[in-house]
Amino acid sequence: MASTSLTARFKQSVTPASLRAYLAEFISTFFYVFAVVGSAMASKLAGYELSIVVDCCGLGDAAADPSSLVIVAIANAFALSSAVYIAANASGGHVNPAVTFGMAVGGRINVPTALFYWISQMLASVMACIFLKVATVGQHVPTNTIAEEMTGFGASLLEGVMSFGLVYTVYAAGDPRRSSLGAIGPLAVGLTAGANVLAAGPFSGGSMNPACAFGSAVIAGRLKNQAVYWVGPLIGAAVAGLLYDNVVFPTEAPDSLRGVSDDVGV
Amino acid sequence: MASTSLTARFKQSVTPASLRAYLAEFISTFFYVFAVVGSAMASKLAGYELSIVVDCCGLGDAAADPSSLVIVAIANAFALSSAVYIAANASGGHVNPAVTFGMAVGGRINVPTALFYWISQMLASVMACIFLKVATVGQHVPTNTIAEEMTGFGASLLEGVMSFGLVYTVYAAGDPRRSSLGAIGPLAVGLTAGANVLAAGPFSGGSMNPACAFGSAVIAGRLKNQAVYWVGPLIGAAVAGLLYDNVVFPTEAPDSLRGVSDDVGV
Amino acid sequence: MASTSLTARFKQSVTPASLRAYLAEFISTFFYVFAVVGSAMASKLAGYELSIVVDCCGLGDAAADPSSLVIVAIANAFALSSAVYIAANASGGHVNPAVTFGMAVGGRINVPTALFYWISQMLASVMACIFLKVATVGQHVPTNTIAEEMTGFGASLLEGVMSFGLVYTVYAAGDPRRSSLGAIGPLAVGLTAGANVLAAGPFSGGSMNPACAFGSAVIAGRLKNQAVYWVGPLIGAAVAGLLYDNVVFPTEAPDSLRGVSDDVGV
Amino acid sequence: MASTSLTARFKQSVTPASLRAYLAEFISTFFYVFAVVGSAMASKLAGYELSIVVDCCGLGDAAADPSSLVIVAIANAFALSSAVYIAANASGGHVNPAVTFGMAVGGRINVPTALFYWISQMLASVMACIFLKVATVGQHVPTNTIAEEMTGFGASLLEGVMSFGLVYTVYAAGDPRRSSLGAIGPLAVGLTAGANVLAAGPFSGGSMNPACAFGSAVIAGRLKNQAVYWVGPLIGAAVAGLLYDNVVFPTEAPDSLRGVSDDVGV
Repeated sequence: MASTSLTARFKQSVTPASLRAYLAEFISTFFYVFAVVGSAMASKLAGYELSIVVDCCGLGDAAADPSSLVIVAIANAFALSSAVYIAANASGGHVNPAVTFGMAVGGRINVPTALFYWISQMLASVMACIFLKVATVGQHVPTNTIAEEMTGFGASLLEGVMSFGLVYTVYAAGDPRRSSLGAIGPLAVGLTAGANVLAAGPFSGGSMNPACAFGSAVIAGRLKNQAVYWVGPLIGAAVAGLLYDNVVFPTEAPDSLRGVSDDVGV
Repeated sequence: MASTSLTARFKQSVTPASLRAYLAEFISTFFYVFAVVGSAMASKLAGYELSIVVDCCGLGDAAADPSSLVIVAIANAFALSSAVYIAANASGGHVNPAVTFGMAVGGRINVPTALFYWISQMLASVMACIFLKVATVGQHVPTNTIAEEMTGFGASLLEGVMSFGLVYTVYAAGDPRRSSLGAIGPLAVGLTAGANVLAAGPFSGGSMNPACAFGSAVIAGRLKNQAVYWVGPLIGAAVAGLLYDNVVFPTEAPDSLRGVSDDVGV
Repeated sequence: MASTSLTARFKQSVTPASLRAYLAEFISTFFYVFAVVGSAMASKLAGYELSIVVDCCGLGDAAADPSSLVIVAIANAFALSSAVYIAANASGGHVNPAVTFGMAVGGRINVPTALFYWISQMLASVMACIFLKVATVGQHVPTNTIAEEMTGFGASLLEGVMSFGLVYTVYAAGDPRRSSLGAIGPLAVGLTAGANVLAAGPFSGGSMNPACAFGSAVIAGRLKNQAVYWVGPLIGAAVAGLLYDNVVFPTEAPDSLRGVSDDVGV
Repeated sequence: MASTSLTARFKQSVTPASLRAYLAEFISTFFYVFAVVGSAMASKLAGYELSIVVDCCGLGDAAADPSSLVIVAIANAFALSSAVYIAANASGGHVNPAVTFGMAVGGRINVPTALFYWISQMLASVMACIFLKVATVGQHVPTNTIAEEMTGFGASLLEGVMSFGLVYTVYAAGDPRRSSLGAIGPLAVGLTAGANVLAAGPFSGGSMNPACAFGSAVIAGRLKNQAVYWVGPLIGAAVAGLLYDNVVFPTEAPDSLRGVSDDVGV
């Protein structure tokens, strides 16, 4: 029985509609990773001349300056908003293996489909980084790094908590019960990511996205600390999915929910 | 009679729906404070190397540079927009004791419920600051400060007027009479906060949120000037609630309102 | 007959609904000017330490640095979006004498009402600048300035063209024919203002708002060049109103309009 | 027969509704190019004093500093969002010859109309650059440049991939099947452009818009590398149009589409 169900589920994962969903995930993740990694490269290149100035004051690396943080955070917010937007109707707009994992844990997507989503996302991320390296004739591809003061555990914790916030927002954005607010759902997802990058960028890199961390690490050849960008986000995403569906917005009691919302305002 | 009513009201405050509302406030406030305080920490860390440059010109503190102002203001706008968004259907998305106070004054939420909201918000803020301190292995947690030129009264006045603007926007965002505009309500609240931080950040810190000011001050161990971040915002919030409901958009006359809106355009 | 009509129109301008509209304009304009002028003050204060650095290289004024431009432009975009949003249902959300003039030219608002709008807006702007000066204990209130290379005529032309764009967007945002797009109308208005400030900030100040220019100039005591910020914007606003209503989106032919929109895509 | 059809199609291109669409394209493209080119000029002027500092450290050009990148990217995002917004109901809000080309390839607009769109867009871009030069009394008009490390082919590839993303987003934004999400369509288009500029600004200029590249190049007198800004974007746009309509969101199967969207979540 189980294997029959598995076969049925697998078949469900290779319908034309599902294949379109994988393609949509590929396109969205490609452009998201392109913008995030590309903006980090651009802020380094743009800061090059500035770093010469800095050099004349006896300092070699201005990469972590506040302007670069703004550049990467805004790129993240803008790119994720539009990546989620363009894929919303085809694949749900995950653009992130942690989100897909959170959706699978919450039962919104079946496991074989989730695996194909992961493959699309990982492939898209690697392709985006290769493309950036080729188009810029071999510029260095930056990857997420952990601040010297931080431990790997602290960074993973940080990434996990931020991924919780991101996946919780994705659940909220896709909740059909919040009628007119649904319109700005993709925007809310992007803004959450941007705010988190501003808070955690210099500490853990502010990835929240294992695919993005993996792609840039593979091309940069620095796979050290990869566990940090997988363990934390996946756990955070799973907790977010379970909490949203079972505790904060339980699906079995839409009436009482509407009650309190009318009651307490806004 | 009064005590019966109070008991009834208290019972209303511990229903499952209310408990979910408190949890939603906790989650939203946690991520809001995480982004605001975290981005202030990040901009300090990111500006570290820059401050060395500045040092070589004989100056020790570049913390108040324009880039940091942009970082904190954008983090505020992005984080508040999404914090209000994710809590909107469960708790109304206050994320701020001043907003809860303004809602209680306007009769949108009863007093016992408001007290539980305050507890959730304060707890979330303290937890977010502890988390930031632990995850970053003891980095200094910044708190709102008042510019040297300013008096405490001036800062409180500034915070009060900005809180008026914020709570007025929250009332507008939650007004069911502005049909299609309701969709971008959470965004309008976040943008108001961001604009105010840009205007008042270097003067009073641009908090507008007693919970955020309290949490960071407790963890930083600098409770001086706390009154500034409570007195002004609470008064401003109360005035906003009363003015919105009774003067600008009175609930008893929706027809005449619609009349002038059709009449004067936009 | 004409005087009877004038009296009738004047009576229409002092109904409770109209008085509420003037109050809504006052509140919105107050917070808009507070954010725009305050952010210019904040960027100066924040850049103070930076300017010392600059000084050590033999230069006294870092006011026009790129970070300040970003601060003022974002404050403008955020504040105008939310100012238009909160006033939309009460007054139409003009927040700007040029917009009110454009609306009057297009017949969307009658002349006596427009005059009361102007008074509210001017009063709000002056009050916001006084408040900023008092709360910050006498900090210098900055006002719009024209770059040395520019002529007054060039600056007025620039302000006029930008005001055309702004008022055209206000007309579009308030057009009931663009159903679901109406939801982000206030956002579009704010983004237009922000983009224009980024383009023209260092040249003419990027005011597009005679009330804002007047208020800051009165408090700063620098009324020179005021004509620049009135003549251009008012002409630009009038042209925008006439063009939108009569040429691009004529009200008498909604059917043929809908036709081409379906025909040419997006 | 073919010529009859051509004549009929041409007649369709000179109806009053079509003429209004061309005018709407002209206005939107004018303000888009004004903001993009103007912000690049403004960031140069604002960075002038900074560049003197830099000079005192022995370096002559601070144009590519991170702050300028933020300025141009935000101007692009804000201006394109509102340019698409104001033209949406009249012309579809292309604002870009590559988008018009992608729409023509996808059959959403007929070829003669597309040609008139191109003429409007090119004319608007040249006019905006002339206006900027005149109003600023002959300031240098900047144009897109390719980083020294890049090849022309790499830059064209980069521009082509980014234009693919932009046109794909335009298709998604204009898709009537994504009901409530349609409201933020113009915003999604603008955010895509902004994210791409942050990623590719210092490498290829991040134009994605042949009209903007052409206008600034004509006025700056630097028509070198124009092919880069035409070949890549036009190919990218055509591929995006074909892929969206035929593969990811095929028009003949709306039912199965809706099926997977309900199935896979968000």
